[in-house]
Amino acid sequence: MPSPTGDPFLLTPGPLTTAPETKQAMLHDWGSRDSGFIETNGAMLRRILAIANAADDHVCVPVQGSGTFAVEATLGTLVPRTGKSLILINGAYGHRMAKILRYMDRAFVTLETPEDTPPDPQDVARILTSDGDIFHVIMVHCETTSGILNPVAEIAAICAERGNPLIVDAMSAFGAIELDAAEIRFDAVMASSNKCLEGVPGMGFAIIRKSALIASQGNAHSLSLDLYDQWQTMEATKQWRFTPPTHVIAALDAALTLFDAEGGREGRLMRYRENCAILIEGMRGLGFKTFLADALQAPIIVTFHMPGDKAFNFKAFYYGLKERGFIIYPGKLTKEPSFRMGCIGALGSDEMRGAVAAVKEVLADLGVASGTP
Amino acid sequence: MPSPTGDPFLLTPGPLTTAPETKQAMLHDWGSRDSGFIETNGAMLRRILAIANAADDHVCVPVQGSGTFAVEATLGTLVPRTGKSLILINGAYGHRMAKILRYMDRAFVTLETPEDTPPDPQDVARILTSDGDIFHVIMVHCETTSGILNPVAEIAAICAERGNPLIVDAMSAFGAIELDAAEIRFDAVMASSNKCLEGVPGMGFAIIRKSALIASQGNAHSLSLDLYDQWQTMEATKQWRFTPPTHVIAALDAALTLFDAEGGREGRLMRYRENCAILIEGMRGLGFKTFLADALQAPIIVTFHMPGDKAFNFKAFYYGLKERGFIIYPGKLTKEPSFRMGCIGALGSDEMRGAVAAVKEVLADLGVASGTP
Repeated sequence: MPSPTGDPFLLTPGPLTTAPETKQAMLHDWGSRDSGFIETNGAMLRRILAIANAADDHVCVPVQGSGTFAVEATLGTLVPRTGKSLILINGAYGHRMAKILRYMDRAFVTLETPEDTPPDPQDVARILTSDGDIFHVIMVHCETTSGILNPVAEIAAICAERGNPLIVDAMSAFGAIELDAAEIRFDAVMASSNKCLEGVPGMGFAIIRKSALIASQGNAHSLSLDLYDQWQTMEATKQWRFTPPTHVIAALDAALTLFDAEGGREGRLMRYRENCAILIEGMRGLGFKTFLADALQAPIIVTFHMPGDKAFNFKAFYYGLKERGFIIYPGKLTKEPSFRMGCIGALGSDEMRGAVAAVKEVLADLGVASGTP
Repeated sequence: MPSPTGDPFLLTPGPLTTAPETKQAMLHDWGSRDSGFIETNGAMLRRILAIANAADDHVCVPVQGSGTFAVEATLGTLVPRTGKSLILINGAYGHRMAKILRYMDRAFVTLETPEDTPPDPQDVARILTSDGDIFHVIMVHCETTSGILNPVAEIAAICAERGNPLIVDAMSAFGAIELDAAEIRFDAVMASSNKCLEGVPGMGFAIIRKSALIASQGNAHSLSLDLYDQWQTMEATKQWRFTPPTHVIAALDAALTLFDAEGGREGRLMRYRENCAILIEGMRGLGFKTFLADALQAPIIVTFHMPGDKAFNFKAFYYGLKERGFIIYPGKLTKEPSFRMGCIGALGSDEMRGAVAAVKEVLADLGVASGTP
């Protein structure tokens, strides 16, 4: 099935398929220090803050680059050079935060669980009780490795009780999965332009508790990634310190207008839930098995076990789907043999049904017996 | 005078006015790990390398973000933790590299000259001779603060003689001012998508000597900005480590096609030279004085002394020009009171004449006596 642009639909963890209006917003050039751009930028930051209901105690600080840049910038800015952190890990993005702290030479311990298992909040409580040196607790909201939803609310409650600030990589969850600053206490939440907000890639941001940001002066290991410095400049001038990705920001502004029109976070979640249900039901109908138990599955990206049928060849499967107009993630991130199909982006039930139909066709082409891949 | 999009023309140091074809290339979505995007990305890197005639001994490593991200990534990757560098400074971007090294806790000395004065190559030779601990020499090709062209060839010769690797921030020069790896010996040259290559902002890159990059493993202070790691992954998979700004890259690819069609670097330089000549001649005709001597002026951005006439008000001047379709840089970077007008981007002689005509009108509106601002 063809998309409006003739391009394949992206059933990936991002970059995603975006709406035509989002892309068309990039058909202009802006002076990045001109009042017109400054207004668009300010409105964008306020809109992002509102999604997390965080305007009272937090600020939104943007940063150029991919989601990882926003994660590293936030950790580098907030975690003091002598601080010790606890990182909760159940996938590649948790491991990546550990790698970032190693680069920065910051002390940390980890609580690692299998990729299909969320951290037990009681284990977090136990670790915090037994090691009083730990300050920040760092976790992933939806671990895109598998698509698992981690228990942010429960862990936030434990952190709040003990006075440990919580930092949440909400990259693939923000804008769809609930995260309300009035209910969940966090010092920082990081996400990017090109996941559930359905913008194009090139910009990340962090929603940071103002008091924590004020206290972070001098922490950062990098000028480019110093969110304290970025915030200070933006407070004073409303401008980014260094050239912002103007077209990416214009696209995100347009994408946020579509977000509002869809009913905000709740509307978006409803569509993603339906997308996810169609995908899982359809794929199960073809014999595929999900990697995660249903109760742990976020409606963002679904990991399927690699079929055992000898006739199944992933590369041929990938290109067969691409020929039919659907691009999936061309590899695996989990330790188990698996593949992933996303259900976010400017896609609805027609596209998800189309994707399942394409999978069925490709299986037939490969000679994989229907119902038993 | 209206642009094709109705937007003002950007007579700034960037982001710049880009061609319609460049912006239209962003009307598609790509899977960042799909073969189609991988091909575009690989071709883009080869084309950039060819502009510097650097394919024999160098590689091109891209990085997300603004030019400063590319500069910091290159310094962080190449300058060893125990290394001592010499930074040549005659403007804000030289100072910024010193700031970056301070963040990274790397030792350096500086040779600072006034903003209208290039470093004397003999002073560089003297410093290198007297301090044998200095390894890297770090300089700016065209210092965008004033628009001054620094003597890269002469300083490169001195560095080559002594075995000191040269790192050049060529942000606003690359793609227009000559920099040929066969004639000028450098370990790294950094630039970005949105200057003389006339792409949109969101990506920088470094052309790095392969042997220097191989030797740089473990230097980097930041995961996101580790160009060794980025290069290793790209060698192995042809993919970026972390989500690339796919639309920005597609725009740069389209912009490079226009670059080739214009006759490459030489064709572009010819247009910029004409733009610059029209601007300077026109502005002098209205009584403005350039900050730099003509022999030092790169045809990139021109700094004019702030007029002494009491009737001249910069803010009113800025908005008067904007109303007439021209956006200039809304402030100054030099220590002297001044303002800047760029002559790069998708602009030609008509637009430059239009800009001068607009300046004349605004001066009349402000009641500044013609010929004596």
